[in-house]
Amino acid sequence: MKEIGIGLLGFGTVGAGVVEALQRNGDLLAGRIGVRLVLRRIADVDLDRDRGVTVDRSLLTRDAAALIDDPAVDIVIELIGGTTLARDFVLRALRLGKPVITANKALLADHGGEIFALAAANNTGVWFEASVAGGVPIIRALREGLVANRIDRIFGILNGTCNYILTKMEREQVTFEHALKEAQAAGYAEADPGLDIDGFDTAHKAAILASLAYGIQVPMEKIHVEGIRGLSKADIEYARDFGYRVKQLAVIKAVGGEVEVRVHPTLVPHDHMLSSVMGVFNAVVVDGDIVGQTVYTGRGAGRLPTASAVVSDLAEVARILADGGRKARYSPASPSGKITFRPMGEVECRYYLRLSLLDKPGILGVVATVLGQHGISLASILQKEPNRSGRHVSVVILTHRAVEKNIMEAMRILEERQALGAKPVCLRIEDPGIEKAS
Amino acid sequence: MKEIGIGLLGFGTVGAGVVEALQRNGDLLAGRIGVRLVLRRIADVDLDRDRGVTVDRSLLTRDAAALIDDPAVDIVIELIGGTTLARDFVLRALRLGKPVITANKALLADHGGEIFALAAANNTGVWFEASVAGGVPIIRALREGLVANRIDRIFGILNGTCNYILTKMEREQVTFEHALKEAQAAGYAEADPGLDIDGFDTAHKAAILASLAYGIQVPMEKIHVEGIRGLSKADIEYARDFGYRVKQLAVIKAVGGEVEVRVHPTLVPHDHMLSSVMGVFNAVVVDGDIVGQTVYTGRGAGRLPTASAVVSDLAEVARILADGGRKARYSPASPSGKITFRPMGEVECRYYLRLSLLDKPGILGVVATVLGQHGISLASILQKEPNRSGRHVSVVILTHRAVEKNIMEAMRILEERQALGAKPVCLRIEDPGIEKAS
Repeated sequence: MKEIGIGLLGFGTVGAGVVEALQRNGDLLAGRIGVRLVLRRIADVDLDRDRGVTVDRSLLTRDAAALIDDPAVDIVIELIGGTTLARDFVLRALRLGKPVITANKALLADHGGEIFALAAANNTGVWFEASVAGGVPIIRALREGLVANRIDRIFGILNGTCNYILTKMEREQVTFEHALKEAQAAGYAEADPGLDIDGFDTAHKAAILASLAYGIQVPMEKIHVEGIRGLSKADIEYARDFGYRVKQLAVIKAVGGEVEVRVHPTLVPHDHMLSSVMGVFNAVVVDGDIVGQTVYTGRGAGRLPTASAVVSDLAEVARILADGGRKARYSPASPSGKITFRPMGEVECRYYLRLSLLDKPGILGVVATVLGQHGISLASILQKEPNRSGRHVSVVILTHRAVEKNIMEAMRILEERQALGAKPVCLRIEDPGIEKAS
Repeated sequence: MKEIGIGLLGFGTVGAGVVEALQRNGDLLAGRIGVRLVLRRIADVDLDRDRGVTVDRSLLTRDAAALIDDPAVDIVIELIGGTTLARDFVLRALRLGKPVITANKALLADHGGEIFALAAANNTGVWFEASVAGGVPIIRALREGLVANRIDRIFGILNGTCNYILTKMEREQVTFEHALKEAQAAGYAEADPGLDIDGFDTAHKAAILASLAYGIQVPMEKIHVEGIRGLSKADIEYARDFGYRVKQLAVIKAVGGEVEVRVHPTLVPHDHMLSSVMGVFNAVVVDGDIVGQTVYTGRGAGRLPTASAVVSDLAEVARILADGGRKARYSPASPSGKITFRPMGEVECRYYLRLSLLDKPGILGVVATVLGQHGISLASILQKEPNRSGRHVSVVILTHRAVEKNIMEAMRILEERQALGAKPVCLRIEDPGIEKAS
């Protein structure tokens, strides 16, 4: 059986997972793809740490460049992370015409243009199934399974840390701070959790999905990003009373020739599948013009789920190399297009507003009038008893579809008129847009 | 741009959907795959019926054989259905070395061995993404996305008609007969609904999924098949009280070197995603040893969703033909294996039992004793007030894991001892096997 040589850059958590997957299922895989994947070298700065897998010490090296250049290495897997060394190594491999497999969403988000251009120029490709939603084969679904479709919308839960925290806040009725601490204790959040909870990790992944759907590079500054740090227990509970769960979503949507890409906590109706995705699980919903709505769910991170995605790319590339010689070209999902990004102010959706109103006669009339003047109409409203101090009343409003900048302007005017006793809470509602019992 | 010629056999609902998809998104598709798909001929017995799409009449023919033989046709799509003519045409195309795309699960279930062997002998392949779960790219997920995994279990909702009926029975608390009539009126069930509601359509699809997971042909007689015809409102309601929904599932599982394939109404816990799949939607859950659990959901049938899957196969085959000449070989998901099928009697799972007991002292003791003697232990039990006639008491029992033949034997003994006032209801419970809030 033909052998294809693999060089692994980065022997961390996922790297060790890839080694374990190849060791465990190497024979099965060879039978399936008709090619044997042989791990030729592993490069890491630390050659001594125990990774829970046994490898021949002669495979290990500190010299990443030598690994890439080794003629016995046909495919390079980059699992170093970061955007400096990883970029250098990926570019080096591509210059040699060697296909690269990576899980590095930050690298693709920041340097995708350069990397894909260099790959094309060298008649090879970059594969990145592991970069979004871990082991869920969402990249393949967009590139192949849904290739017949114009993609109208992609939305989903792309960050397990956020979803773990939101699940805990809802189930155990604890504060964000409490849930974050537990997530850290359980190993589901980093000591410095900003990348996850402030939405940037989700934004990187959203950029990758948008690039597949529309053939565009999405600069980070075109993505509106909000994290879950400010989310209060009260809003999760009110949302539940209205029949919604709060999820940290990426939303990518084509509207009238423009594309909007945004990341923020979002209300999702509790009878849509997305709202039953709990804990560290990820889920991606894709609306195609031919197929309708399809949903993909699974573990979005972790040693083995991510390894499953890396090895699926290995299998694809190895088949191509075995069939057609040394060159493996990547087929993008979409031809590269020129696209206008829709500014956040122009985004239109439904809103959840929680207003802390001064408890005086006529105040609700002021609110309704100001909203009405901005084209915002109310779908439902809930007013609770005044709080203990007696000066403020919480009013929760779900609006019909409204334009973001009108919502923001209405809030500014209410604050200016001193109608509000605290900063208003504005959360967006994503309409799953699927008939319920058809 | 390179052109690939397509011949379409069968201009029915799905055939017209394929034409519509190619007309609507042909340019987008050509940009994505770098090949233009050109519809060269369409064969059908009826050339006059309005299908809601406009095609040049010169494309239409009644001569399927001539279409297949036409040198301008590179790929043959079989959407005729049935297992006689369709088989002849598929074999004819394969003998010419032309790749075939089909949505015909019955054909693959009954003649898959012959068809795949002939394809391999002629250095070509058969693609069948559309045969299971409509537009959901589950075949690709098994062949490619999850290729790194040993498949431990696949279970799912594969028949939209059954799921529509069960959804209606639960939501509107109507009988099976009533729900079936409404499904027929809405076009979601055939006038002769047997293939769907008696489980055979699901069984055909289960056979295809099992063949992908384990590289085996599954004879229909190895599949235990039960339909939903006998299901009562009462059981749906009791199940709900215990926190379950009743779904018509296919279950494919590898246990101790054996494979079990079964189709039957099944209790699924309401907090698993599968239980929130409603109406005509399909969903497939796959447990892989590396990735863990992933779930795939979408429309399981219908003109355009099925066309989306057919066109995804077209795109794959066209790319292969454009790259490598006239031959497109299919890569199966698994090497062909020899497998022992587990007889239904040996299957082990949890059970829902509804027993109509004679209302006399000690009767529950008899039941508990008989169950205990057969190694069946009780997880929960619910006894309702006697019914109006006063002679029978309904007792619903959820068991811990038990072996099918022991359950059947215990029921036989209870009937023999005249403890039961009606035939017992035995439904299986599928444990989704996934931690809930991790």
